[in-house]
Amino acid sequence: MSMNTLEGGEVLITPRRTVGESDINIFAGLVGDFTPVHMDEVFAQATPFGGRIAHGTLTMSTAIGLLTQTGRLGENVIGLLALNWDFAKPVMIGDTIHAKVTIAERRPTRKPGRDVVVFAFEVMNQKNAVIQLGRMTVLMRAE
Amino acid sequence: MSMNTLEGGEVLITPRRTVGESDINIFAGLVGDFTPVHMDEVFAQATPFGGRIAHGTLTMSTAIGLLTQTGRLGENVIGLLALNWDFAKPVMIGDTIHAKVTIAERRPTRKPGRDVVVFAFEVMNQKNAVIQLGRMTVLMRAE
Amino acid sequence: MSMNTLEGGEVLITPRRTVGESDINIFAGLVGDFTPVHMDEVFAQATPFGGRIAHGTLTMSTAIGLLTQTGRLGENVIGLLALNWDFAKPVMIGDTIHAKVTIAERRPTRKPGRDVVVFAFEVMNQKNAVIQLGRMTVLMRAE
Amino acid sequence: MSMNTLEGGEVLITPRRTVGESDINIFAGLVGDFTPVHMDEVFAQATPFGGRIAHGTLTMSTAIGLLTQTGRLGENVIGLLALNWDFAKPVMIGDTIHAKVTIAERRPTRKPGRDVVVFAFEVMNQKNAVIQLGRMTVLMRAE
Amino acid sequence: MSMNTLEGGEVLITPRRTVGESDINIFAGLVGDFTPVHMDEVFAQATPFGGRIAHGTLTMSTAIGLLTQTGRLGENVIGLLALNWDFAKPVMIGDTIHAKVTIAERRPTRKPGRDVVVFAFEVMNQKNAVIQLGRMTVLMRAE
Amino acid sequence: MSMNTLEGGEVLITPRRTVGESDINIFAGLVGDFTPVHMDEVFAQATPFGGRIAHGTLTMSTAIGLLTQTGRLGENVIGLLALNWDFAKPVMIGDTIHAKVTIAERRPTRKPGRDVVVFAFEVMNQKNAVIQLGRMTVLMRAE
Repeated sequence: MSMNTLEGGEVLITPRRTVGESDINIFAGLVGDFTPVHMDEVFAQATPFGGRIAHGTLTMSTAIGLLTQTGRLGENVIGLLALNWDFAKPVMIGDTIHAKVTIAERRPTRKPGRDVVVFAFEVMNQKNAVIQLGRMTVLMRAE
Repeated sequence: MSMNTLEGGEVLITPRRTVGESDINIFAGLVGDFTPVHMDEVFAQATPFGGRIAHGTLTMSTAIGLLTQTGRLGENVIGLLALNWDFAKPVMIGDTIHAKVTIAERRPTRKPGRDVVVFAFEVMNQKNAVIQLGRMTVLMRAE
Repeated sequence: MSMNTLEGGEVLITPRRTVGESDINIFAGLVGDFTPVHMDEVFAQATPFGGRIAHGTLTMSTAIGLLTQTGRLGENVIGLLALNWDFAKPVMIGDTIHAKVTIAERRPTRKPGRDVVVFAFEVMNQKNAVIQLGRMTVLMRAE
Repeated sequence: MSMNTLEGGEVLITPRRTVGESDINIFAGLVGDFTPVHMDEVFAQATPFGGRIAHGTLTMSTAIGLLTQTGRLGENVIGLLALNWDFAKPVMIGDTIHAKVTIAERRPTRKPGRDVVVFAFEVMNQKNAVIQLGRMTVLMRAE
Repeated sequence: MSMNTLEGGEVLITPRRTVGESDINIFAGLVGDFTPVHMDEVFAQATPFGGRIAHGTLTMSTAIGLLTQTGRLGENVIGLLALNWDFAKPVMIGDTIHAKVTIAERRPTRKPGRDVVVFAFEVMNQKNAVIQLGRMTVLMRAE
Repeated sequence: MSMNTLEGGEVLITPRRTVGESDINIFAGLVGDFTPVHMDEVFAQATPFGGRIAHGTLTMSTAIGLLTQTGRLGENVIGLLALNWDFAKPVMIGDTIHAKVTIAERRPTRKPGRDVVVFAFEVMNQKNAVIQLGRMTVLMRAE
């Protein structure tokens, strides 16, 4: 086990990222999701949000990306097993998000050299309001 | 209730989308996730996959996007509440995916005019192998 | 003929899309058109428009894309035959466009199972000012 | 009138551009047009084209972009007035296109200092097959 | 030698380009550089810059791109040999840049038909403040 | 000084990145550089390279991006001061690059708390051939 192994209980604070209009538009095009609350300012201003919001899947994927930027996963990731995610608040254009990620669990699999690691995410905006809570289960090499 | 309302038990078959190398690279950049199995062909060829694979979150988000392209959600979407998703098989560069989506549940909320709708996804590749199974819970207008 | 066949005289109202700075910049790069009125704010502020405007071909292509989002064309499109388009007003950064599309004509071709369909577009901004008028001629499957 | 003024009868040969899968995917997302013949390799292989083709509007817009790359329009463009375009052949992934553009007409407008210039395009692929024929009418400064 | 050959001492003024938030975000993703001063508005506001700035390499690459848009290099470029570049001031979101480029040197190589050309760049913003000074050495065909 | 401070003599090996056609096309559009050797397969096949190559500035910027992915710079970067870079070999579509980066120098500035750090890059492809050699000078916080 290397000094750098992610162990149960460890907490990682990710870098932050500001979500811009272009991120929403590019994501919409990439995944083909043009739901009006993301793409139509006239519609969005008439909702309780008062403006366009980011796709929840964009924010979730960005939070996971920010975790990878800590440099603690890298070549040890074998594959994603599961996501269980709750969406509490919207991300507006210009919001800056980051995540506090706790290693909720690390357990060996039957196959030697492979562990299941569960990451518990709290995704927050620039006001430290929690916008998403989720768990990501990943198959990783046992180091 | 309009003729077009999504009712429990209804099944939707989405259009298909071919996932290219550019989709993976753009997604990686957009969400900041450069995990080697997605971005490094030398690394990926040495894994059991034998080549780069799409981020699971890209495929999941694309499946949701394909659902929106059926034209059955649109302005009725208020917000995403939860995702619970299992990832079974990888998507390789050049694979073509689509989803079979069942309306697993539709129930009113305490607030009149708002329903919770649960969509059960089976995401498949061009060989009809199931690559992901997931549930998306959305708050929608009761039509 | 399916219930869903587009018939002469039918009118479709597309979803709306807000055109952002990023849409203009990405389009410019994609098609290689860096005409100053689109890319150079210093130049554009000195024109009668008072700021950068979208490429006419971006707005036209977006209006066609919005038509496809109605879910009424899809797999029945065989190919684009002709575009005849007039550009009346500019689209500024932040404008929200949509189109009213009338099926101006549907006629069989000599080859059985193939129709020519003419779509007449009125493209409008968020003030309902008509910014473009055009006709798109498409070869489609006779359903 | 500068030495560089575009005069009726002049012929411009544009640079060439290879159209890749990413260009098609990015264009689809940007303008929101996911018609299956562009995005679904399974569908496209069953068509007479035998594979995905570029959106006609992407090729047309690219041909116009290639014209701007000759450096002969630039700050003299005031606005696009009209496009009249016929689509004869598809552009497949990997094709390289360019255009032969003839200044079909240059006439003054009633407003001094402004000319209407008509560009007649022949868009060709790497086999010199004509894929599109079109006319672009532009309002330009009289130099 | 054609009339159009770039000769030592000649000065080229490039077109201008406005750098938007989307350019910075897309560049960050493309090259995988998420340094906080570019991507994190909360962090950037606390720096002396008072906001996010463009990657120096984006501005440098854009200045080189603007030079190519003068239409004077094109098919004569064989390859880039060297860049020597100093970064003096930041480019903020919304700044408009251009370059004054002097042909500092043109010398034949031992291999006939090939010249080394040195371009000296002054990159300026919309206030004509010099933001970068650099030299680009390129191998070009002797025309 | 933290344990994590970059010291003169330290060597960092970056992750790898495969450069695809889409990376070249997006970079070309982003910086507006459509030099034929990058964008025109017909032209490029007739050069000694035998096909399209990546812009040298894309590869250089990607190498710098890969360095940031080691997680050793982050919030300590104040600004880029200089780049001095030699380009030895081309990067073809599909090549996988990485860099070996040596901290060539770290010296304090007159302003307390700020150091100048010089990073010496060797950029290599998947065959371990050196394609670029460069030095990047950065202003960083003294930790």
